[in-house]
Amino acid sequence: MTESLEMGKSIDFNVQTFDFKSAQFYLDRAYANAPFIHCLTNNTTKFFVANALLAIGAKPAMVESWQEVVEFSQRAANVVMNLDSLTDERLRSLSMSAQVAHDHGKWWVFDPAAVSDILSYRSGFARELLRYYPRVIRGNASEISYLNDTYGRRSFENVMSSSEAIEAAVKLAIHQRAVVVVTGEIDYVTDGETILAVRGGHPFLGRVCGTGCVLSAMIASTVLCGDVLYGAASACALMKRAGERAGLTTSGLGSFYVALLDNLTFPMRYQD
Amino acid sequence: MTESLEMGKSIDFNVQTFDFKSAQFYLDRAYANAPFIHCLTNNTTKFFVANALLAIGAKPAMVESWQEVVEFSQRAANVVMNLDSLTDERLRSLSMSAQVAHDHGKWWVFDPAAVSDILSYRSGFARELLRYYPRVIRGNASEISYLNDTYGRRSFENVMSSSEAIEAAVKLAIHQRAVVVVTGEIDYVTDGETILAVRGGHPFLGRVCGTGCVLSAMIASTVLCGDVLYGAASACALMKRAGERAGLTTSGLGSFYVALLDNLTFPMRYQD
Amino acid sequence: MTESLEMGKSIDFNVQTFDFKSAQFYLDRAYANAPFIHCLTNNTTKFFVANALLAIGAKPAMVESWQEVVEFSQRAANVVMNLDSLTDERLRSLSMSAQVAHDHGKWWVFDPAAVSDILSYRSGFARELLRYYPRVIRGNASEISYLNDTYGRRSFENVMSSSEAIEAAVKLAIHQRAVVVVTGEIDYVTDGETILAVRGGHPFLGRVCGTGCVLSAMIASTVLCGDVLYGAASACALMKRAGERAGLTTSGLGSFYVALLDNLTFPMRYQD
Repeated sequence: MTESLEMGKSIDFNVQTFDFKSAQFYLDRAYANAPFIHCLTNNTTKFFVANALLAIGAKPAMVESWQEVVEFSQRAANVVMNLDSLTDERLRSLSMSAQVAHDHGKWWVFDPAAVSDILSYRSGFARELLRYYPRVIRGNASEISYLNDTYGRRSFENVMSSSEAIEAAVKLAIHQRAVVVVTGEIDYVTDGETILAVRGGHPFLGRVCGTGCVLSAMIASTVLCGDVLYGAASACALMKRAGERAGLTTSGLGSFYVALLDNLTFPMRYQD
Repeated sequence: MTESLEMGKSIDFNVQTFDFKSAQFYLDRAYANAPFIHCLTNNTTKFFVANALLAIGAKPAMVESWQEVVEFSQRAANVVMNLDSLTDERLRSLSMSAQVAHDHGKWWVFDPAAVSDILSYRSGFARELLRYYPRVIRGNASEISYLNDTYGRRSFENVMSSSEAIEAAVKLAIHQRAVVVVTGEIDYVTDGETILAVRGGHPFLGRVCGTGCVLSAMIASTVLCGDVLYGAASACALMKRAGERAGLTTSGLGSFYVALLDNLTFPMRYQD
Repeated sequence: MTESLEMGKSIDFNVQTFDFKSAQFYLDRAYANAPFIHCLTNNTTKFFVANALLAIGAKPAMVESWQEVVEFSQRAANVVMNLDSLTDERLRSLSMSAQVAHDHGKWWVFDPAAVSDILSYRSGFARELLRYYPRVIRGNASEISYLNDTYGRRSFENVMSSSEAIEAAVKLAIHQRAVVVVTGEIDYVTDGETILAVRGGHPFLGRVCGTGCVLSAMIASTVLCGDVLYGAASACALMKRAGERAGLTTSGLGSFYVALLDNLTFPMRYQD
């Protein structure tokens, strides 16, 4: 199924639906590969991120001190970097990891958490990091729009829907030669040509802490499966589906979090 | 219902019971307001704190680096500051946040975790922070007594019952022009005149890690609902009731933690 | 039951099985003692570590800044130190805690997380820490082998089975006058003479994040019960049994984590 979206009266986007059934091939390969993923992620959500990676079969390393990140990033199959909890020490670690990845022709996934006009410290640094060309960029509509400079962004709170950032995502993907993922009620995944839409999920996915960080980390694992675009979309489809299933049995954030992790755990019986 | 407590043979306190039914109005308003709460809290419990705030409808930001705290504290509806995990970097962040809140006439909530004669680093800094006049101070009996200088405190372990700190709480509230919350088997909430007692709860509330940090953060949201005293007591009543309900279905710390978060999640069906 | 293992054709080890039934005496004493345990542990797993200690009846303090660690380590019944998340600040804290423990004739438990030829920063520091003589060392086969210098270790990933490190554990125990715990599918606990084997568990114990850090911390509590060797083995037996029981009711990492904490929670009904 495809659909047409008109943006600013000038560009037509052809959007293809990508569902969980299409994702299974990539997810099973990610589980079988058991890739070593180096995570420089948010302090608040590290435990959730590590467990989600372990659930899908990856081997996470959460080392963040600049004295050790080069050794880990050199050996990792992929690196995910998140701008949250940014300090000067952490900035040094992220720079070193991005540089070593870039210099060795390796991939890394960028999560530009909360970039905006207001937060100049992290946002200026985000632009520096883009020079090391992440293979995937994952953010909400505001973050992707800010990185693309399409909109002057005034708030670090996301007040846009993901469909409003499709044009920014396509342009950013072309300019950065990256796959760009805009998450929201619908997730859009694009390499600048094809646009995939991933639907589903549950309102608690936007409410429980850390699902964005977790998705960025899972993408670092699933894109290693032969196709970056479809691999990234597969992580989105898995998260949406796990949220749906968790939502069936839970009525609060505690049990939703637990059921979400359960529904990310491989090996998975798809007939369920 | 009221009761009289005699302290040191000289002061009579009139204590009013505050229950969950009285709290519902304030909690529903907090959920509807969805306030943006800036948290400078304990490293160990950040994920729990963030999820508890999300559960009651608030929007938490956990940013702690001094390069970014001013932007967040300026825009937040309230700020909560906790002394745990104190380092020189963190001390700088807390000072900057408290100052910006004070200078802009904004509120902040102070959690003087583990202040005591023994821990001079954090305890000296706690006294400095008091000069920025927090709107609410939440601690256990030892912490509140230490801040009020009533007792020479020799240990960072709390060995007092909350009722032993009522006098200290009243004096501290008057001196600091703040609402003071002393938590324990019974929580006492006072503005220096009225004293509210919140009863209930479950022994695991004192055993699972982080309930104190979480309560301080929830207070930052619930006091924004028109009445600081009753708003603060409402957060206490919610925590006590969530603990009671979690205790009904669980026999260990893991499931208690999960059920506690579930029972903090709004919107809530009060008829349950 | 005992068994003989032949290692390198030259050394015969006499290994005794230690099961959960034997552990109950030590675990009940640990719960009754409620020891104050100072934890300098992994950033990612701190909340899990704190809750596991609370579950078995200990009182954890997670303070890590060098400005405060001496006060805590001096007063703690035991200190656990983990090499993960190592920075210069943290290195300073660990050094100060180890020194104060050593100078006061106090015990501490060492978790040499990920020491290896590759990670020279933490591994060099690990050797320095050994000069402060930890009472217990807990690691996987690679870590224990690296500390003992038996094998040139090339990877920070553990690719050995625990039984391959028995000789290294015995030698390290003798050289360091410590109890050494090598964890894996079977845990081995030795004081250099006796070797205890602890069997059981569940594959998810090796997959959910933080069980190693948690075990090291629990050992810090259980060794205070009159016998270091049997106390350490008791923590292993508790973890194996909690994993088994958690595995009975769960099919994913989320609910396994929750059930694991539940099955660590004391007081415990052993007839279950």
